[in-house]
Amino acid sequence: MKIIVDAMGGDHAPRVVVEGAIAALKEYINVEVGLVGDESTINSLLLKHNYDRGRLSVHQASEVIEMSESAANSVRRKRDSSIVVGVNLVKEGQGEAFFSAGNTGAVVCAATLGLRLLPGVERPGIAIVTPTQKGPCVVIDVGANIDPKPTQLLQYGIMGSVYSKYILKKDNPAVGLLNIGEEESKGTEFVKETYELLEKSRLNFIGNVEGKDLFSGKCDVIVCDGFVGNIALKVSESAAETIQLFLKRHILSSLMGKIGLIFLRPNLKRFKKEMDYAEYGGAPLLGVEKPVIIGHGRSNSRAIKNAIRVAKEEVERRFNEKILEALA
Amino acid sequence: MKIIVDAMGGDHAPRVVVEGAIAALKEYINVEVGLVGDESTINSLLLKHNYDRGRLSVHQASEVIEMSESAANSVRRKRDSSIVVGVNLVKEGQGEAFFSAGNTGAVVCAATLGLRLLPGVERPGIAIVTPTQKGPCVVIDVGANIDPKPTQLLQYGIMGSVYSKYILKKDNPAVGLLNIGEEESKGTEFVKETYELLEKSRLNFIGNVEGKDLFSGKCDVIVCDGFVGNIALKVSESAAETIQLFLKRHILSSLMGKIGLIFLRPNLKRFKKEMDYAEYGGAPLLGVEKPVIIGHGRSNSRAIKNAIRVAKEEVERRFNEKILEALA
Repeated sequence: MKIIVDAMGGDHAPRVVVEGAIAALKEYINVEVGLVGDESTINSLLLKHNYDRGRLSVHQASEVIEMSESAANSVRRKRDSSIVVGVNLVKEGQGEAFFSAGNTGAVVCAATLGLRLLPGVERPGIAIVTPTQKGPCVVIDVGANIDPKPTQLLQYGIMGSVYSKYILKKDNPAVGLLNIGEEESKGTEFVKETYELLEKSRLNFIGNVEGKDLFSGKCDVIVCDGFVGNIALKVSESAAETIQLFLKRHILSSLMGKIGLIFLRPNLKRFKKEMDYAEYGGAPLLGVEKPVIIGHGRSNSRAIKNAIRVAKEEVERRFNEKILEALA
Repeated sequence: MKIIVDAMGGDHAPRVVVEGAIAALKEYINVEVGLVGDESTINSLLLKHNYDRGRLSVHQASEVIEMSESAANSVRRKRDSSIVVGVNLVKEGQGEAFFSAGNTGAVVCAATLGLRLLPGVERPGIAIVTPTQKGPCVVIDVGANIDPKPTQLLQYGIMGSVYSKYILKKDNPAVGLLNIGEEESKGTEFVKETYELLEKSRLNFIGNVEGKDLFSGKCDVIVCDGFVGNIALKVSESAAETIQLFLKRHILSSLMGKIGLIFLRPNLKRFKKEMDYAEYGGAPLLGVEKPVIIGHGRSNSRAIKNAIRVAKEEVERRFNEKILEALA
């Protein structure tokens, strides 16, 4: 199984991508990695590492789509960018899945244009997994489709449910619709239409859920439009960071606090690890014919390695076949 | 100055409302409180307290609008509810401001129907204040108007800016538009139209901001529609709670952790206080002719007391006059 990896994507690329890929080769023995990007830069980084050369290849791409570039334009113009070349390698069957921590919009756009959508899917959606008090919860969409139709949200519900079942191993996943209150009468016309579609579907639909339920564990899948989902995701990341910053400031504000910290250090380290997005790897783009995983721009090498694991799991568990069955 | 307080609103009403009102009378010597609700229940709760009887009155209201009731229906039907009676008391000039920790939708509806809107305001908006790394930030709207027009978001920008300037004492407040990216080209058509209006206005508009900026301090006022704002608010509350829960679990997971906790207790107490919504009191409903403050359903007596302080500040600083000047 070969995972195609955008070596140029992310704030700390290509260094951390190369490190993450090598860590993945060591940990997942059935995985091969194809790194896409500037060959000479990648090769000079690879020189510093020991790894199984038979399982790592480098594919030249002369251009890079920057984080701030317009998605559609850059994908159309930069045909030799690492994102476009990477997607094409997967399209041609030279790899089973694609991962990039680069420009999210460009990855969505390149994957939508380059790979076929699964029959029954009108637009792909980005899923993320949040840690809740009762295990992981899938939130879809968090930014691929900011102005969707209700039918597309139904498709997200189906795909999110399959992800929860086959990747996260939840039985009969409970699906909720993100809204401003639990009552059926709540929300915009768009949300009410979506509610009706979800209720008529074969999904285990539990009704409306609220912003707080991203972390409550009330359901296993939360469906929302990409605008709201993206803002919810970034609010929660920022809340987590700000709270940790405030906590640190309060602990370090007194001598007693500093003494207490000596005792607590291992506990706080485990806490930080649980909070760390890098543990969860990348976010799957669901609805395209081949697994595509999108990483956080700030990904470090552990996040890259874990994203490759997420790609590997989708391939191993024939995830797209399960989606096709559910959509049928 | 008399603040009319819905004694029946909130999960722990009327007990905590009575306690909060009495605490407010003790702390704010120029304030009178009018408690609205079931007179005999309120009077029997008052019996347990010592307070300045000249500054507290009780106003009978025989009905209560429950938290889960439909806003418009309940306001129309329950004419003798504490919310409707309270708003009417303010309308008749028997009080300068109204506070309720009850059904948010019902408070918005009763205030919109019962009090006049300020000239130039098409719909009122709920503002909240988030703690950021660089001081407080006003987010408006967080749920009064879930399907607004771009002109209404401009009005929220103006009112939020006045709040930041006269209540939070920020000079020339920077206003941002909540979006999924910073570039001008980002977002839905609705957001792009709003962007244009904000840019042409006299506000200190700094462009698009993202979900993370609710806590970053990048700007002093964040404008958004009430659907997105409500979800952002509830996501951040839930993230904060979940993180504190995870932290507690990690600290208590070992003997060393428990020892460390003994040293850290005062620091963690200060941290919890900074995180506690009760410190911030209520959320002002901006755009109606008299100050209206909405409390969290879970308000404790400290939150009630602080919400009365927020109402008092709006009255003292002639906040609505400042809004009128800014809208002119």
